[in-house]
Amino acid sequence: MAPPDPALLSLNTATVRAQWNLRQMIEGCARHGIRGISPWRDKLAEYGAKEAKRMIDANGLTVTGLCRGGMFPAADARGRKAAIEDNLRAIDDAAVLGAHCLVLVVGGMPQGSKDLAGAREMVRDGIGTVLDHARGAGVPLAIEPLHPMYAADRACVNTLGQALDLCDELDGRASGALGVAVDVYHVWWDPELARQIERAGEKRILAFHICDWLVPTTDLLLDRGMMGDGVIDIPLIRSWVERAGYRGFHEVEIFSANNWWRRDADEVLAMCKERHQSAS
Amino acid sequence: MAPPDPALLSLNTATVRAQWNLRQMIEGCARHGIRGISPWRDKLAEYGAKEAKRMIDANGLTVTGLCRGGMFPAADARGRKAAIEDNLRAIDDAAVLGAHCLVLVVGGMPQGSKDLAGAREMVRDGIGTVLDHARGAGVPLAIEPLHPMYAADRACVNTLGQALDLCDELDGRASGALGVAVDVYHVWWDPELARQIERAGEKRILAFHICDWLVPTTDLLLDRGMMGDGVIDIPLIRSWVERAGYRGFHEVEIFSANNWWRRDADEVLAMCKERHQSAS
Repeated sequence: MAPPDPALLSLNTATVRAQWNLRQMIEGCARHGIRGISPWRDKLAEYGAKEAKRMIDANGLTVTGLCRGGMFPAADARGRKAAIEDNLRAIDDAAVLGAHCLVLVVGGMPQGSKDLAGAREMVRDGIGTVLDHARGAGVPLAIEPLHPMYAADRACVNTLGQALDLCDELDGRASGALGVAVDVYHVWWDPELARQIERAGEKRILAFHICDWLVPTTDLLLDRGMMGDGVIDIPLIRSWVERAGYRGFHEVEIFSANNWWRRDADEVLAMCKERHQSAS
Repeated sequence: MAPPDPALLSLNTATVRAQWNLRQMIEGCARHGIRGISPWRDKLAEYGAKEAKRMIDANGLTVTGLCRGGMFPAADARGRKAAIEDNLRAIDDAAVLGAHCLVLVVGGMPQGSKDLAGAREMVRDGIGTVLDHARGAGVPLAIEPLHPMYAADRACVNTLGQALDLCDELDGRASGALGVAVDVYHVWWDPELARQIERAGEKRILAFHICDWLVPTTDLLLDRGMMGDGVIDIPLIRSWVERAGYRGFHEVEIFSANNWWRRDADEVLAMCKERHQSAS
């Protein structure tokens, strides 16, 4: 594989969330020549969507996604309604930002529940409820299948195939309003991955996230690796999404409490650029 | 679901491996009225297979499995040959024990490799190489799909569907020589689980392992929960394996460095019996 186009690198704000506020992130991207940014809503809240959009435009960046909507399952109707309302607000913010998509981390089982199938139905119903609003706002929804180790508490959509089944059910004509975010960290192990990426195709691959799986991994949530430091063959997976027609950004999203979050953020961005070229 | 037949409880020796040697485990099972045992080879090595078999018979126990063979991938031919030889020895020990199956934890990628597909081919070739010997020894081989979080370093077979594809390829007529071990900890999250258990059927479900997924899980390897302490709907999964025709033992396998391995082993066995009835 030839190295990727450096212009396709995007920074997911989770990667330096411990070091910088949103303004620093935007200016940092501009300073390092990183042309895409994908903010999390906690960082967006520091300025609000309109002011964030102004800063992002002033620095010539593209918003490759907004993280995140989702978290649909809840123990009662009131909780599910609150989740819907939160998703509608996220869609509106994504529209203000001109985000390429709103990433959906769909949620796990409500506290105390063991009903995985029921949680999955709540996710389907939740996405179905907000899809028209998203369509009207021009914000594609990207279902992100999360690694099965998050099935209980973060996302009960755990394979790309399962996410695409949801797309088929809710947007069978592949209108572009509903698709998937392919994060190598979550899906690299899947024996069906190549086939499901092909199935997804250009219309439904709305985002491509990169980082690496470390061996050993010492924490289920906060021990992701920089591209090249782990065992994922990222160029291979990139070749699959490119063959499927994806031409979008490559978004670096690294949760790393004990390593990258402790380093100087400019060093982290420089390393993202380097490893995007050498190991992605 | 009605509680399971208490006579179907089996103790996987991993559950009290920190407290007891094999003799204590065998005598402990007899004392608590637990009728099945599944030794790991480190414990078997304390006495050797013949003496272990004598002690197990003297206490009237059934050997529901031997843990474990597998670990086929290696960086070079010499390493792969050593793995084959180790598996042949494990098969011979399982035959001496009259074990219902030899559980295969198939292995991950060789150190430094990112070639997941290649590792999966080594697994297929390795099982294919030892299958005739196992057949001749009367020892069914049970491929255990491991949770995807172990794909890199422990087992690159990560779904029941993938394990059954291997069975189809290597033993298409479902002779009984090759099947799967269904461990709820590894497969509970799988949206395909009910369908794949039905596909496996009576001929290919060689073992059923139980424990629980804790929320939060604080360690990828050594933080499994006692049945009922986590989020897995074990009775539901048991209903699926029973509907598929499985009538074998329910083997409790709990790796728990900070909880169950620190308790008195008799207390652990009593709790296994109680939770087998109340939460499995």
